[in-house]
Amino acid sequence: MKVIDGGVTAAKGFQAACCEANIKYKNRTDMAMVYSSQPCECAGTFTTNVVKAACVQWDQKIVYSGEPMQAVVINSGIANACTGKEGFDACEATAKAVEKELGVPFSNVAVASTGVIGMQLPVEKLVNGVTAMSKTLDESLEAGTAAAKAIMTTDTIHKEVAVTFEIAGKTVTLGGMSKGSGMIHPNMCTMLGFLTTDLAIEKCLLQEALSDVVKDTFNMITVDGDTSTNDTLLIMANGLAENAKIIEKGIEYETFVSALSFVCEYLAKKMAGDGEGASKLFEAKVVNAKSKDDARTLSRAIVASNLSKAAIYGCDANFGRFLCAMGYSGAQFDQNDVELFFESKEGRLQVFDKGTPIVFDEALAAKILGAEEVTIFVDMHEGSEEATAWGCDLTYDYVKINADYRS
Amino acid sequence: MKVIDGGVTAAKGFQAACCEANIKYKNRTDMAMVYSSQPCECAGTFTTNVVKAACVQWDQKIVYSGEPMQAVVINSGIANACTGKEGFDACEATAKAVEKELGVPFSNVAVASTGVIGMQLPVEKLVNGVTAMSKTLDESLEAGTAAAKAIMTTDTIHKEVAVTFEIAGKTVTLGGMSKGSGMIHPNMCTMLGFLTTDLAIEKCLLQEALSDVVKDTFNMITVDGDTSTNDTLLIMANGLAENAKIIEKGIEYETFVSALSFVCEYLAKKMAGDGEGASKLFEAKVVNAKSKDDARTLSRAIVASNLSKAAIYGCDANFGRFLCAMGYSGAQFDQNDVELFFESKEGRLQVFDKGTPIVFDEALAAKILGAEEVTIFVDMHEGSEEATAWGCDLTYDYVKINADYRS
Repeated sequence: MKVIDGGVTAAKGFQAACCEANIKYKNRTDMAMVYSSQPCECAGTFTTNVVKAACVQWDQKIVYSGEPMQAVVINSGIANACTGKEGFDACEATAKAVEKELGVPFSNVAVASTGVIGMQLPVEKLVNGVTAMSKTLDESLEAGTAAAKAIMTTDTIHKEVAVTFEIAGKTVTLGGMSKGSGMIHPNMCTMLGFLTTDLAIEKCLLQEALSDVVKDTFNMITVDGDTSTNDTLLIMANGLAENAKIIEKGIEYETFVSALSFVCEYLAKKMAGDGEGASKLFEAKVVNAKSKDDARTLSRAIVASNLSKAAIYGCDANFGRFLCAMGYSGAQFDQNDVELFFESKEGRLQVFDKGTPIVFDEALAAKILGAEEVTIFVDMHEGSEEATAWGCDLTYDYVKINADYRS
Repeated sequence: MKVIDGGVTAAKGFQAACCEANIKYKNRTDMAMVYSSQPCECAGTFTTNVVKAACVQWDQKIVYSGEPMQAVVINSGIANACTGKEGFDACEATAKAVEKELGVPFSNVAVASTGVIGMQLPVEKLVNGVTAMSKTLDESLEAGTAAAKAIMTTDTIHKEVAVTFEIAGKTVTLGGMSKGSGMIHPNMCTMLGFLTTDLAIEKCLLQEALSDVVKDTFNMITVDGDTSTNDTLLIMANGLAENAKIIEKGIEYETFVSALSFVCEYLAKKMAGDGEGASKLFEAKVVNAKSKDDARTLSRAIVASNLSKAAIYGCDANFGRFLCAMGYSGAQFDQNDVELFFESKEGRLQVFDKGTPIVFDEALAAKILGAEEVTIFVDMHEGSEEATAWGCDLTYDYVKINADYRS
């Protein structure tokens, strides 16, 4: 597998476009479209929130129906959640505009929205945006990057990545983009992500691969514990790499899963490190747990705790907060088995040894915690399973961003 | 029932003391003792955190053994959690010091700690503190207030309350104090609370009353979602009111439960409103839910959400965040049944009507949300159960307090 430049337009046959639709933001792009020259097998994972945005319900219909997907239209600024029938009508109008411009059946057009909940989308602006973007679709890497920028809300950086890998002598490309910074919590795929590949693969395997990979990537990040109404991760596979179609599990399927894992972990970590107001990436690695579920639960509890996150922000070696978070996570364990370490490029330091605090070098601890990427490493000594979760610190800026986000 | 002045020393036979033991804080009291002239029936509820502080384990032994309780010694500054055998030895040394000074069997002495996790308590300072306090025990209301102040950590106000009520012609008094500001989340009784009463009641009924009342009071508050290692709520009943002992449920038991509910709700709301960095009390009231559990889950999810809390801080009428939190709470419901209102002393405003956002007066919304106590009122239209939860807003000061709490 090789990392290459680009994002959603890296794979063969995919084009992207964006425009300034003036939905809520001014003087910036706020709509994007991704289009495949061929109908694609598709798969998706969606928010577990009972209050699902209209666009989530729209996309679920496509993914679960078995219909192909050929385009996705995304807007930032308004989430189209809690909007009743009018919100669903906006999805349909957007998809029908794509049908009119590009001849793609509207039932093969996904839509996604991110922004304020409880406001109606301006349908005319969306339709005009589709018309404009249909004329500027472009397969260049720059077009993919521009789309990744258009879907940002409070993100400070755009997120995209692409890789190539070999399937039975054919070079396959997989690329993707994502956005997400607030309302991020691992009960699902977490915010908006769009993956494109020219791989030929059966739909059911595409879905299984995506659902499996999400568990250890997008579902292992958290920014603020708030699971969005809009979380959507879609993958489109158009088959233009001309590999012999993957129709069963085996070495080729595993090769694809590895590439998919890399792409999803890359995007997930970028989202965690770019959490609202974040100043650093906060990683928790739990090893030797009794079960995989325990390892995931424990590591996520550490990075999800407000008190842990505030301590990481303050470079405060308050390791009891990590143990406290593990303790209320729901996983059962004995604190007398646990070892806890701080790690970063500045060094590694043990602070807790099987039930007892260690007297440690405070200056070294502060130095380790002062790095841009900090890891809490926990050895449970109770089994052989491990998991890693990613989050960010809790800062003044998080509060600032969210105290006046809508206004 | 009548609200009277005082706290833990309001009921007959209870004395309190405090001292400056210099455990971590300087130039302030940091130890307190509550003592009853008679052995008491006792009951307690404790943290559900797997990582339980040594003092929690100590107190559980007393409550679950059926032994009487006659004194409780509390310190602030260090939590005595994650401290191994040395931590448990500190509990025993403290209780034995009380035995030596006051002749109370050490197995009848509860201990409680709050502060930094993962540091050992200075046992000699604790023992000296017990010696000093044993000489200054006092039944005045002022002594109770001084004790309530000594157990504070990041609290900005001390919390105490007392009431009297009649049981079969006898006047019974119930008083209490609590502390708690951070690491507060409703998986249990939440932080430290100590209740004293001169009621005569069977132990099993005392425990049942406390466990029931906690569900709708202390367990319905949240500050930051972090369930502490130390949460402890104890009640001691010494029988000095000389009422005919309550040995079964009936009108007298219900009278006591009403008074207990009032006292617990009063203290719980004080703790929520005094959450770390909080500028206002944030209440969520859910009515007409399918079940009591659903009502509790939904109301707690609203006040626990960081995004909701930040919106309340910013007086931002971003009602979608409340619906979003309800949606990921775990309760099942249809957003097309839900009505949502903002309430405070400034007025009442509907913002969401059965699946559809309402165009509302933004200025009025900001005015309502600008009050010191704000309620999100939700009518589920799906049943007849209701619940209320309390929390606070998320402010810059919360981050500030927790980024350098230990340092």
